Amino acid sequence: MFNKVLVANRGEIAVRVIRALRELNITSVAVYSEADRNALHTELADEAICIGPAKSLDSYANPVAVLSAALVTGADAIHPGYGFLSERSDFASMCEELGIKFIGPKSWIINDMGNKQNARETMKAAGVPITPGSEGLVESLEEAKKIASEIGYPLMVKAADGGGGKGMRRVENAEMLEPMFKQAQQETQSVYGNQHLYIERIIYPAKHIEVQLLGDEHGNVVHLGERDCSLQRNNQKVIEIAPAQSLTEDVRNALCSTAVKAASAIGYTNAGTIEFLVDDQNNFYFMEMNTRLQVEHPITEMITGIDIVKEQIRIAMGQALSFKQEDVEFSGVAIECRLNAEDPKNNFRPSSGYIDRLIMPSGGMGLRIESAIYPRYTLPPFYDSMIAKIIVHRPTREKAFTLLNRALVEVVVEGLETNVELLEELAFHPDVQADRTHTKWLEEIFMPEWLDTLNEEMDEISNKEVTEEG
Amino acid sequence: MFNKVLVANRGEIAVRVIRALRELNITSVAVYSEADRNALHTELADEAICIGPAKSLDSYANPVAVLSAALVTGADAIHPGYGFLSERSDFASMCEELGIKFIGPKSWIINDMGNKQNARETMKAAGVPITPGSEGLVESLEEAKKIASEIGYPLMVKAADGGGGKGMRRVENAEMLEPMFKQAQQETQSVYGNQHLYIERIIYPAKHIEVQLLGDEHGNVVHLGERDCSLQRNNQKVIEIAPAQSLTEDVRNALCSTAVKAASAIGYTNAGTIEFLVDDQNNFYFMEMNTRLQVEHPITEMITGIDIVKEQIRIAMGQALSFKQEDVEFSGVAIECRLNAEDPKNNFRPSSGYIDRLIMPSGGMGLRIESAIYPRYTLPPFYDSMIAKIIVHRPTREKAFTLLNRALVEVVVEGLETNVELLEELAFHPDVQADRTHTKWLEEIFMPEWLDTLNEEMDEISNKEVTEEG
Repeated sequence: MFNKVLVANRGEIAVRVIRALRELNITSVAVYSEADRNALHTELADEAICIGPAKSLDSYANPVAVLSAALVTGADAIHPGYGFLSERSDFASMCEELGIKFIGPKSWIINDMGNKQNARETMKAAGVPITPGSEGLVESLEEAKKIASEIGYPLMVKAADGGGGKGMRRVENAEMLEPMFKQAQQETQSVYGNQHLYIERIIYPAKHIEVQLLGDEHGNVVHLGERDCSLQRNNQKVIEIAPAQSLTEDVRNALCSTAVKAASAIGYTNAGTIEFLVDDQNNFYFMEMNTRLQVEHPITEMITGIDIVKEQIRIAMGQALSFKQEDVEFSGVAIECRLNAEDPKNNFRPSSGYIDRLIMPSGGMGLRIESAIYPRYTLPPFYDSMIAKIIVHRPTREKAFTLLNRALVEVVVEGLETNVELLEELAFHPDVQADRTHTKWLEEIFMPEWLDTLNEEMDEISNKEVTEEG
Repeated sequence: MFNKVLVANRGEIAVRVIRALRELNITSVAVYSEADRNALHTELADEAICIGPAKSLDSYANPVAVLSAALVTGADAIHPGYGFLSERSDFASMCEELGIKFIGPKSWIINDMGNKQNARETMKAAGVPITPGSEGLVESLEEAKKIASEIGYPLMVKAADGGGGKGMRRVENAEMLEPMFKQAQQETQSVYGNQHLYIERIIYPAKHIEVQLLGDEHGNVVHLGERDCSLQRNNQKVIEIAPAQSLTEDVRNALCSTAVKAASAIGYTNAGTIEFLVDDQNNFYFMEMNTRLQVEHPITEMITGIDIVKEQIRIAMGQALSFKQEDVEFSGVAIECRLNAEDPKNNFRPSSGYIDRLIMPSGGMGLRIESAIYPRYTLPPFYDSMIAKIIVHRPTREKAFTLLNRALVEVVVEGLETNVELLEELAFHPDVQADRTHTKWLEEIFMPEWLDTLNEEMDEISNKEVTEEG
């Protein structure tokens, strides 16, 4: 049993973990930066300790600062949340050496899955279909040309150590291969200090569908079904839905059991997610594995009734999973919206500052809000722009959207710009409701239309002003 | 179909109904008193109309004011919520005459069940066990003595038209019968203008257990299970739980099917509740029928997944129930706490005024908050002191209490006195968790102990001050 767990994060996920600890009767320790003295997680935890200045590299993402706090407070374990240190294998490894339990998988698995080309090879060996592309690293332009002629265009050249689009180039045709490959080589060299590149076919149009996994330390691995996270902007998920309506039962079973088989093969423990791209013929391809809790975990909790954060903690305490695959029952449809402090009309510029008025929706059945903001809170400008998750769970997709729409209409955040209007438009959109979307739909189809509408409205307003003046 | 529905109420229940209407795509009309211009229900509804001064008899409880608002706004129907006009048969009857649908049972049923002695006789005729007592009205002291000698002491003398304790006297023994009977006679005369009294045996210790019913206008009646509402103070429920742990499956079935049979026999339509007293031998006795939605309806919604408010609206539109008794499935345990603006340490004196800071619990699975307050809201002093309902739903009673405790600890209401500490103490109390309570437990056992503890703490503080001064 853990007596005390340190939560190495901030925002809604820190609050989420602190609440789970309280319900498990485990003392919680919050860490906070100097910018987060008044943050909700700092206030809610049983203990709180300042770990450094606002800048996350000096506080939340600083392994030494976090570990010192754990040692000082006598924490038995650390929950890393998502982001920050959650996928830092060096951090997990330092925890292991200090005898502080890292609530996540073993450090070597984090390391293994953190390298994209490595993950690809591991998954291929475990029987998971991978995107057609290079077998290993592509050493030269000549090799790249040969592979490209086999798999066809468009394709992506990617850095093996890549993330956030660094060292990544889209190649539309044979003519563009040489310049793009060279650019990727140079960028990878300058960012990662090597020229480790690989090539993948672009799957388009595709659904982003991911499988939630839980593995205990006794060799049991189960899946908790899948999530459709195709509504993305800039590789950031905006709305997530579980289950994925587009999957037939056969494909769903294949996807989920493949994920379980792969996780078992690599000896995966704790919570993790395997992300797939699924094309319009229902072929699925491994994309990446997230060796941590994900932002969108609540929709899986809603449709399964399983508290993933508590399971993570129980697994880390060495408990065997209390249920088998066949005990996992799925019920209804859950949707999550990410409410961000940003201005979609202004190129999604992040917003921060004093929250003058705040009314979050509540009431009725199947509504869940995960948030760390409160009225008169001053949102610091240093961190992720997500301020709340609005989650709904209803027996049917139609009812879930009805509830989501009702909830979004009630949101009042005065003092910050938010994306709530964009979320409303999305949640009302017939393509979203009927599941006619893919990973590029939001950027390529929805956003241009939406911005046009906004511009027209602006034009109308200014024309009206002119007329009135005349 | 209704196009527009007027919500003849305020506070959380008005907000609850407005949200249900929005989800059903029906236009909502709020009515508000001059004291409620800034109330959440006024803000949330599609339309809002002022119906008079703060005093509820001149606004929310004024049939003419409400009906005028319905006519002016062109509402097809009126949802009365609970309290105010919800059990006024004259109001329901006026709606019927004006062709405005009253969302509730027929006016004559409200009238029939509103008279306690009448309800008792009707229920007896429908096969419902009633508390041993007089067969009809007790005309004289001699008759009262005769009945008392048959049913034994302690007993209650009650006004047939009674409510809120008016015309009601507890009689401990034969000696006290004459003075108490005479007092009741006089009070009933002065309050109701008649001397209609009846006598009932006091069931003690007893559980207050009630059955939620839904009847459509096509003769179908179903029950949605029972609620244990034994935790009461001053006949006001404080914490309600569904299902009732104390019932064996046999007794539960008998109770629920008796309630359905009775409601069918009287042709009951819309939502209603039959309240029973259940003694420690599992004998149950009819107490009263509430011909309206109840405050505690959410716990039944949580364990059945059925939205009672939406069902009320559908029934009123003439739709048949979309499910049969055998389709109703029960899952888990739900608990509701009533957060009141009152000072339990000061004889529960109501509190009102400016809410300076407000943080209501949120997040995690199975938590639901029904509330109409918001930060910087000024709670008017004119209405019921209940400001929020904290509802939890978990697979087991133990987990439900764990979540409830976590939620209560998070509540922050600055600017008002509330009963949140009392609720915390109750929710942590082993007798409550283990279901060792009855209708008088809170007043007779819990409160004296709690007040003693508080006094001791106060003494310690003042002793300490003396010592320090010394």
